[in-house]
Amino acid sequence: MTIFETLESEVRSYCRSWPVMFDRASGSRMWDVDGREYLDFFAGAGALNYGHNHPELREPLLKYLSSDRVVHSLDMNTVAKAEFLERFEQVILKPRGLDYKVQFPGPTGTNAVESALKLARKVTGRESIISFTNAFHGMTLGSLSVTGNSMKRGGAGIPLVHATPMPYDNYLDGVVPDFLWFERLLKDSGSGLNDPAAVIVETVQGEGGVNVARLDWLRGLSELCRRHELLLIVDDVQMGCGRTGPFFSFEAAGIDPDIVCLSKSISGYGLPMALTLLKPELDVWEPGEHNGTFRGQNPSFVTAAAALNFWTDNRLEKSVLRKGELIEQALTEVVDPIDGVSTRGRGLIRGVAFERPELAAAVCREAFDRGLLLETSGPNGEVVKLMPALVIDDDDLTEGLTIVAESIESVAARELTPTSSGASR
Amino acid sequence: MTIFETLESEVRSYCRSWPVMFDRASGSRMWDVDGREYLDFFAGAGALNYGHNHPELREPLLKYLSSDRVVHSLDMNTVAKAEFLERFEQVILKPRGLDYKVQFPGPTGTNAVESALKLARKVTGRESIISFTNAFHGMTLGSLSVTGNSMKRGGAGIPLVHATPMPYDNYLDGVVPDFLWFERLLKDSGSGLNDPAAVIVETVQGEGGVNVARLDWLRGLSELCRRHELLLIVDDVQMGCGRTGPFFSFEAAGIDPDIVCLSKSISGYGLPMALTLLKPELDVWEPGEHNGTFRGQNPSFVTAAAALNFWTDNRLEKSVLRKGELIEQALTEVVDPIDGVSTRGRGLIRGVAFERPELAAAVCREAFDRGLLLETSGPNGEVVKLMPALVIDDDDLTEGLTIVAESIESVAARELTPTSSGASR
Amino acid sequence: MTIFETLESEVRSYCRSWPVMFDRASGSRMWDVDGREYLDFFAGAGALNYGHNHPELREPLLKYLSSDRVVHSLDMNTVAKAEFLERFEQVILKPRGLDYKVQFPGPTGTNAVESALKLARKVTGRESIISFTNAFHGMTLGSLSVTGNSMKRGGAGIPLVHATPMPYDNYLDGVVPDFLWFERLLKDSGSGLNDPAAVIVETVQGEGGVNVARLDWLRGLSELCRRHELLLIVDDVQMGCGRTGPFFSFEAAGIDPDIVCLSKSISGYGLPMALTLLKPELDVWEPGEHNGTFRGQNPSFVTAAAALNFWTDNRLEKSVLRKGELIEQALTEVVDPIDGVSTRGRGLIRGVAFERPELAAAVCREAFDRGLLLETSGPNGEVVKLMPALVIDDDDLTEGLTIVAESIESVAARELTPTSSGASR
Amino acid sequence: MTIFETLESEVRSYCRSWPVMFDRASGSRMWDVDGREYLDFFAGAGALNYGHNHPELREPLLKYLSSDRVVHSLDMNTVAKAEFLERFEQVILKPRGLDYKVQFPGPTGTNAVESALKLARKVTGRESIISFTNAFHGMTLGSLSVTGNSMKRGGAGIPLVHATPMPYDNYLDGVVPDFLWFERLLKDSGSGLNDPAAVIVETVQGEGGVNVARLDWLRGLSELCRRHELLLIVDDVQMGCGRTGPFFSFEAAGIDPDIVCLSKSISGYGLPMALTLLKPELDVWEPGEHNGTFRGQNPSFVTAAAALNFWTDNRLEKSVLRKGELIEQALTEVVDPIDGVSTRGRGLIRGVAFERPELAAAVCREAFDRGLLLETSGPNGEVVKLMPALVIDDDDLTEGLTIVAESIESVAARELTPTSSGASR
Repeated sequence: MTIFETLESEVRSYCRSWPVMFDRASGSRMWDVDGREYLDFFAGAGALNYGHNHPELREPLLKYLSSDRVVHSLDMNTVAKAEFLERFEQVILKPRGLDYKVQFPGPTGTNAVESALKLARKVTGRESIISFTNAFHGMTLGSLSVTGNSMKRGGAGIPLVHATPMPYDNYLDGVVPDFLWFERLLKDSGSGLNDPAAVIVETVQGEGGVNVARLDWLRGLSELCRRHELLLIVDDVQMGCGRTGPFFSFEAAGIDPDIVCLSKSISGYGLPMALTLLKPELDVWEPGEHNGTFRGQNPSFVTAAAALNFWTDNRLEKSVLRKGELIEQALTEVVDPIDGVSTRGRGLIRGVAFERPELAAAVCREAFDRGLLLETSGPNGEVVKLMPALVIDDDDLTEGLTIVAESIESVAARELTPTSSGASR
Repeated sequence: MTIFETLESEVRSYCRSWPVMFDRASGSRMWDVDGREYLDFFAGAGALNYGHNHPELREPLLKYLSSDRVVHSLDMNTVAKAEFLERFEQVILKPRGLDYKVQFPGPTGTNAVESALKLARKVTGRESIISFTNAFHGMTLGSLSVTGNSMKRGGAGIPLVHATPMPYDNYLDGVVPDFLWFERLLKDSGSGLNDPAAVIVETVQGEGGVNVARLDWLRGLSELCRRHELLLIVDDVQMGCGRTGPFFSFEAAGIDPDIVCLSKSISGYGLPMALTLLKPELDVWEPGEHNGTFRGQNPSFVTAAAALNFWTDNRLEKSVLRKGELIEQALTEVVDPIDGVSTRGRGLIRGVAFERPELAAAVCREAFDRGLLLETSGPNGEVVKLMPALVIDDDDLTEGLTIVAESIESVAARELTPTSSGASR
Repeated sequence: MTIFETLESEVRSYCRSWPVMFDRASGSRMWDVDGREYLDFFAGAGALNYGHNHPELREPLLKYLSSDRVVHSLDMNTVAKAEFLERFEQVILKPRGLDYKVQFPGPTGTNAVESALKLARKVTGRESIISFTNAFHGMTLGSLSVTGNSMKRGGAGIPLVHATPMPYDNYLDGVVPDFLWFERLLKDSGSGLNDPAAVIVETVQGEGGVNVARLDWLRGLSELCRRHELLLIVDDVQMGCGRTGPFFSFEAAGIDPDIVCLSKSISGYGLPMALTLLKPELDVWEPGEHNGTFRGQNPSFVTAAAALNFWTDNRLEKSVLRKGELIEQALTEVVDPIDGVSTRGRGLIRGVAFERPELAAAVCREAFDRGLLLETSGPNGEVVKLMPALVIDDDDLTEGLTIVAESIESVAARELTPTSSGASR
Repeated sequence: MTIFETLESEVRSYCRSWPVMFDRASGSRMWDVDGREYLDFFAGAGALNYGHNHPELREPLLKYLSSDRVVHSLDMNTVAKAEFLERFEQVILKPRGLDYKVQFPGPTGTNAVESALKLARKVTGRESIISFTNAFHGMTLGSLSVTGNSMKRGGAGIPLVHATPMPYDNYLDGVVPDFLWFERLLKDSGSGLNDPAAVIVETVQGEGGVNVARLDWLRGLSELCRRHELLLIVDDVQMGCGRTGPFFSFEAAGIDPDIVCLSKSISGYGLPMALTLLKPELDVWEPGEHNGTFRGQNPSFVTAAAALNFWTDNRLEKSVLRKGELIEQALTEVVDPIDGVSTRGRGLIRGVAFERPELAAAVCREAFDRGLLLETSGPNGEVVKLMPALVIDDDDLTEGLTIVAESIESVAARELTPTSSGASR
């Protein structure tokens, strides 16, 4: 029995899929205490977009920590915070013509979502939020109420009631016009829908099963929000910071959300940090109306400012898109001949969906045995999720894809009868 | 206009009281960009119990960060987490005879509180929580619903309804027997009180105005919880980690809570980290039922493990109690001759309460002008809160107390007419 | 200023449409204090299915009241209640093969709905209820939460949150398959829909605009409920007691709801009375768990028992269906040549829907001027609702239809330009 | 097996205490089908203040029903309604200097309470309601949320959360100052109490155990409401219409509630009827914002208008007070020598409270065997409730009191050991 089994709560999860003790990590590689090496296609669930221990982030971090600079500062003004803010304005907001104020809502994604929902309710005076099927926004009560997963919702222990789910893109039969139901409800004063304050959406649902919203659908959603005076909140916690190519995942759609939530890779180094971006006219917060102890996390600001160097030109975006295409091609090749398996994704978030959910878990186990870290997602864990570091080099990528291919093929050979395999189609 | 004023949300708060830009910090000192020095009686609102940049914490942190060790790991097993857990069991739990399992609920106090509330509801199948007047537990919806402050509650934008406040110790007239109302409600099947799952309590309410619960009251509460089968949750986010003397603030009362929330100073270095401690029989979590990206924050585990070295014997506890007494004596001396001012506190959390709230703010401004960081607390900001680092040396402490005394006297001289001063009593 | 204007609340409504003082009534006729006669196509909003003061109901009522029989009895056993129950079993339940227990939940429709919702939640242990767009179930908080009308919902003053609306039959574009969205939500554990206890439905939505559900849709709903173990509640308050032809409006669909709500015409004489019918296996009520002062209203039981005489054979049902067809033909003839007007309905609940809602109100005003009582319904009052007594004779029916036709034509002539009239199509 | 046992829901309750079939009733007497006579100290739970089938109410009722007058009219203007309103203004409101508008909210007490709560929330824009321990206000969701009884609350099947209970008069130890806790919560912006819209109170809690609020306490409550701008709602459903002496139970305290709920005996004859009285400035209802089928119940208006004849002078009030004193004397005499039994009450609502709740039920059974109808009340059914018709004559009253005395003595002799009897004290 390890200390984890004796002392840590049963709530732990990833350690059950990867029952080893990790110790070192660099770029796209991790090593356990026995020195075994793993290729990482998991990237801290999106918190390690620049890989593990990137030297260009570590250097300023070590320098900062070594020289008695302020580490913890709540919402006091610090040099490190100023430098991050200036850099964020200069590198991210200005070039994209985005006009946002920045809130540090506490250092996790769920803090960003909670503050977004609170602000939307305060601004509009309305309570209800529209969320989408299979959304994932976090585990605190506000965020959980807009999250789809029934097991996680059940953990709340109280009815989660101030949100109504709408169908995400491509949720129904592919024939029903976009927003037919949603807009009908909004237009009809007898529909029974409580007047919503806001819509919260992920452009790609990572935890929900790598569900990719079409850009047209996102634009349609944005227009619907304007028509009905709903605030549009984009939760870019997992898909922001370049995961789909551009810094913000919504850029490709050309939409301009009212509120944006960022976290995970915003610090760039796996350190806790989160931002809530809000249109200036929405900044009706009272001083201290939302607070938290770890809002002023200067080591995170230091690595976050350094990580913005990746975004001074469009090279990373292009590289992400190129590598995304590579993955798509490789996966398609593997999956095409197999019945009941399909691919999906955008940029460097990619999924392989299995009609039989247990096969996705089996593929991840196979991959782990071959030294590759992969997780499943989707309501039934039916999707193998590929989410390598954005900065992964082509050799590592190819090596990982080979393992993915072998793992899928191995599972397919074992679990799918010949008659259902592509060969016999 | 600074970048903070142009780009950061109006929600920022401390920077309004201390309108300078901080840059460096060491022990109980901070320096702004202009090199001005400040003595710190604020200690990161309790997140810096061991002062800024303590070398014994920094050393292992820098070593860890310099050697490609795993930084971010969600709930994967890592060497740094194992070392923290082993050390926590050995140094904290075992010597105190405490039997808890440890959950990493996300790295902030509000994550710990949210998971505690969720678990209490899940275990009992009941929704309602009993909180106390002037409690502070955090800003996400679950924690906010058990928080007293009406301005912060208003920020929720929805009715916060699954909690009922009870009077904290000494809230009423000092004559009403403890728990008279609370127990009557519980015993009476016609009282209209929804059956509570749990009680959540701070042993000293820091944000609520340095309200100190008597140990007898805490014991009474604990017994009441057992009698009525309510879970007892101690939110030790601010008062734990030695703030009142012993590691856990509830030790002095000899009670054994069902769930304990720790955060703020658990990492010891101002890095985000939180723990939810739960009795083993309560560990009914499903794997992944509560999760979060920054639960596995190895730099925090490293400094947290190092910080436990302060607790291998009882020297720090004794030192905290001794210095607490010093403060109490010094404050009493200053305050005694002044009408409408009183002192309160335990260990190194101390308050000076003013009948006229604006005087507390004036004292903090005076102190800041004299180079001392102090914040107010209480529903109307009527209490000056002294919360130096636990490891502050006697010289710094004396210097700070001198400034506090001068600031109070200066404000009293200016704002209180002679007839209301102690001299004329 | 009348006493109504000076003393009665502004909430009064029908008296604004029909600003006279009514005094006498008989069959399908009413008279105001000035002796002016009105033909009644409103029938007490469905509470007067057998017309005003039907002699076969009045006679036993007067006899009962004249002979010192028990009037008010809560849920004590009385002879009048026993006679009603025996008659209801014999005339209604047995011949239809329906196995229900009978609850007297209080004498109004909303009492019946509240008790149905409470029971469904108690039986299943689930909180959420599925309601339908443009549903109307009553004004107390439980019933209001499953009602669609936003003005009425707004009157609650608290968020109405434990229900989710689904599209009623024919709500969308007429192309989307029935229950596509509803069933997808139920099947998907990540949909975010709170697990429903029950579905509550009207077979025809009277207040909602005379929206008629197809029998196939009702059957589909019933099957969906069984597949997903949801209780099916039919609110037959307005459509029951023969309004659509058979005694229960759901008989035509051949479905067997778990719970049925009856009120309005169950007493037959316009006296307050309501029933909640529940499958025997659902009868998990504790004695007194739902109560109310006017559950035992013996005068209502007396007229209710007498009114069941209308149902000892199928003559009334046939007559209702025949007269319904007459109305449909007459209305179609009038409406056909006019753009933007259409008809709908089943049995003796019929509607004329106007694309321009103000025209429906205008038609009702015209009809009133011609001595006919008609009300509007629908979220924007866009539907003229025809709901004569079931026992109306053909002369009265014809006279009323003539007035309806004249009123529509008069409004059309005045409000609709020739180019938009049917003549020019 | 009777039809009740086979066909009626298990929710039935009174018929279990009195397992006979009632048929006839007159004044304070009821008879079962076997001709056995019962003296009625129950009075329809307060709905029969003028006894059964009072001839002065029956006469106009029969006349009205015999002459084709309008029976059912929703909120249309009718002669019967006008006559009631005029009479109510003239006999009740004007002489008492009360300025209220009258709403007909549906014909039951819970309708009146629901509309009162809705209006209070609408007027103030606040959600929360203050209720009192052991309150009873009705069984629909809004009313149930302000009701204390936990079994009945449990029937809701959802958390009842928008109300907070406060201690009713004399709830605590008799030493705590009135409203100490309530007012402290209101004054303290950090108390965690959601800002209330209104307070709802019964002047005597009938169902709650015949708990009598002192007039000073009621005045204190009224003043507290004005100080804190809370609306004061008096639920006079059971205690109004003369039960405590004056027409409104709050008259003795000289308070002027913002909203008053009346039902039960307002029709005088046991017919369903309810009123919500509201200060004119609160009449912000939209037309139709609260509605219901049986608001216009003209037979009830007729008997209600006739019943007001009892109130044209103060004879009934004086008689009620006198008879109340008689009961109190008689009960005190019986109860004084017995340990663990005490009396309480005001006017013609009187209780005998037993420390051992099962004795109260035993007394009611004994009384029933002796031909007297009595019910228990209180959270554990520990109070025998005496509630005869207001118009009971002295012979009937004496006869009933004799049975009560015998029943108590019989139970005491059987159940209480001599050492615990008064004789041995």
